[in-house]
Amino acid sequence: MSSFRILSTESRARAGKIITPHGIIDTPSYVAVGTLGAVRGLCPADLELTGTRVIIANTYHLHLRPGEGLIERMGGLHPFMRWKGPLMTDSGGFQIFSLGAGREQGVGKIASVFPEQTGLKQRSIEGKGPLVKVGEDGVEFRSYLDGSVHFFTPEHVIEIETRLGADIILVLDECTSPLHSYGHTLSALNRTHRWALRSLEKFDELSAPSQSLFGIVQGGPYRDLREKSSTFISSLGFDGYAIGGSLGKSKEDMHRILDWTLPNLDPEKPRHLLGIGEIEDIFEVVERGIDMFDCITPSLMARTGTLFNRRSKRFRINILNSAFREDLSPIEEGCACYTCMNYTKAYLRHLFMAKELLAPRLAAIHNHYFVEALMKDIRSAIRQGGFSRLKRDWLG
Amino acid sequence: MSSFRILSTESRARAGKIITPHGIIDTPSYVAVGTLGAVRGLCPADLELTGTRVIIANTYHLHLRPGEGLIERMGGLHPFMRWKGPLMTDSGGFQIFSLGAGREQGVGKIASVFPEQTGLKQRSIEGKGPLVKVGEDGVEFRSYLDGSVHFFTPEHVIEIETRLGADIILVLDECTSPLHSYGHTLSALNRTHRWALRSLEKFDELSAPSQSLFGIVQGGPYRDLREKSSTFISSLGFDGYAIGGSLGKSKEDMHRILDWTLPNLDPEKPRHLLGIGEIEDIFEVVERGIDMFDCITPSLMARTGTLFNRRSKRFRINILNSAFREDLSPIEEGCACYTCMNYTKAYLRHLFMAKELLAPRLAAIHNHYFVEALMKDIRSAIRQGGFSRLKRDWLG
Repeated sequence: MSSFRILSTESRARAGKIITPHGIIDTPSYVAVGTLGAVRGLCPADLELTGTRVIIANTYHLHLRPGEGLIERMGGLHPFMRWKGPLMTDSGGFQIFSLGAGREQGVGKIASVFPEQTGLKQRSIEGKGPLVKVGEDGVEFRSYLDGSVHFFTPEHVIEIETRLGADIILVLDECTSPLHSYGHTLSALNRTHRWALRSLEKFDELSAPSQSLFGIVQGGPYRDLREKSSTFISSLGFDGYAIGGSLGKSKEDMHRILDWTLPNLDPEKPRHLLGIGEIEDIFEVVERGIDMFDCITPSLMARTGTLFNRRSKRFRINILNSAFREDLSPIEEGCACYTCMNYTKAYLRHLFMAKELLAPRLAAIHNHYFVEALMKDIRSAIRQGGFSRLKRDWLG
Repeated sequence: MSSFRILSTESRARAGKIITPHGIIDTPSYVAVGTLGAVRGLCPADLELTGTRVIIANTYHLHLRPGEGLIERMGGLHPFMRWKGPLMTDSGGFQIFSLGAGREQGVGKIASVFPEQTGLKQRSIEGKGPLVKVGEDGVEFRSYLDGSVHFFTPEHVIEIETRLGADIILVLDECTSPLHSYGHTLSALNRTHRWALRSLEKFDELSAPSQSLFGIVQGGPYRDLREKSSTFISSLGFDGYAIGGSLGKSKEDMHRILDWTLPNLDPEKPRHLLGIGEIEDIFEVVERGIDMFDCITPSLMARTGTLFNRRSKRFRINILNSAFREDLSPIEEGCACYTCMNYTKAYLRHLFMAKELLAPRLAAIHNHYFVEALMKDIRSAIRQGGFSRLKRDWLG
């Protein structure tokens, strides 16, 4: 099991460490996304060079392909993907529901996260009835890969995650979209709470001593539901908490939701925010007391040649811009990542223009390094009481 | 300028070294293909781990994108692509003509080498007249990227290659396809010879003391033309030779062509074979006295999950084969490459099935390592008089 210690606080921001069986996660920490057991284009040696400390994989995706049985026979997710550091697995609740309700409403995040796979496979499962049917016992869904029908209960998900063997695992929740009504969100919330109890029971029964189980807070954009959910989930004795579901329609919504949620969670336990991305967001959520967050943005941006740069608008440049055609400087002056230490913008732009396979990899190295370096600065700032100044320096 | 020393011979096979301004190439050597200034998916650090010693880039492609001007302003191809070892540039004669005559006859190799680019761009330049017009002065061609018209003379190519700054550069030649008549092949050969003289003259005028210039032997599948061309090109004082153009329609044709060609070349100079690939071919051409060859196969195979394995049919496996679904062994038992030292076939198959960006990279590392390890074995075998035994061990 992992343990958590808070070393310093500055207002609501916290700097600490999670001690896992596979090493220490200094918090606040970015969690790199390795949905299918690999961070896009980067091998573990690359990830170490970027300062990546912890990776989150996805139970839903790994169950569908290659299956937890194979991964278990290989000794679990750590040896499977050759990652020696801390690992998390998300339950896949978000993915199941974003392929169902989210898609019906046209708001699923999944389509932007895996455009190729979903774009390709959606056609092949059309006309086969609804993708997702949720009931008290669990959720039935069709594989986005081959249309085959699967049924997940909260217990089943815990069992899969135990077999995958990540250090921190998440319960199955029923996700709602920002377009769901108060009534629907309430009933999904109540079910998520009942599922939380069943998950805990199953987790205790399986007694996987090296793993920690995080509960998930739901409640959509509704204040009383977020308050109710955080209070309830905090009372159950989870090892930590994830804030899930819709975070509203704007940044202000997200800030409000965190303000309603975090004060009700046991302050001694780590809090993970599922899926945020912008640099501005990182400062805002850390300021409110978030200890970890995962984010596909550094990988996604890298694929299209969008690169983090502190001095640019929204902290990013598009390397395909013709302004960089003859630019002999690195992506970011002073950046110590492998890419910036070795390559010019002009060469990177050339690789992207030529669709060379090396391009997204060099970009991913930079983007991950950039976020990890920022997190390191944020952690020292909190320890020295300089977080709010650092935030001002960055965001103005 | 580079120098060449032969250390041992076994029958016609030679083991030696080419000492270039950027390090030593032990021969016989595989030359990795980095057409656009990058070997597919691999950075220089990866390449060093695979044992790659020398890379060949392409003047035609680099002229079109990003242009030799930019590369020259960045200090040349070495700093541009961050490769510290020996570099070659092919003239692009093959590419120009395979986009013209080769395409008209449906036999150009280019379509399989760059299916995306050519497939995509071919449409946009349709109906704009012939792609290639060759005259005594040089060759006019349309860019496969945007249809713009370019004109290469032999002198122009030497000038571009001087600006790119590779250690070994190749003259412009007029390539023929296996379907060209004797008459056409003869007249292309005569022009290639006149262009060789002009190239040498231009090279002397530019006096780039660090560069070596290789002539190219043509002659298609015709014995007297190959004999004529090799004798003539050998008489001109080039620093080395490349064997270009069509090598016939079968492996036997290729062997015959080499047998007609190599005896007429100055034995003190290195001989490069342009574009061969199979493991069997490597033994056959080295046996006949080839010192270097370039080959896109390890990269191309890696893209589709085809991996070298000594104990399999044609020395390759397709990792997508369902037989490997649960295979916990490395691609090749005993292989010391990064991929085999770290990953199972089951994980690699999973990455390929999931179209993870990491997949072709790990595959490319193995495939390049495999060929480099074979070349190392071939070199020691020649030095110890055991090449023919090694060839038997491999090919039976």
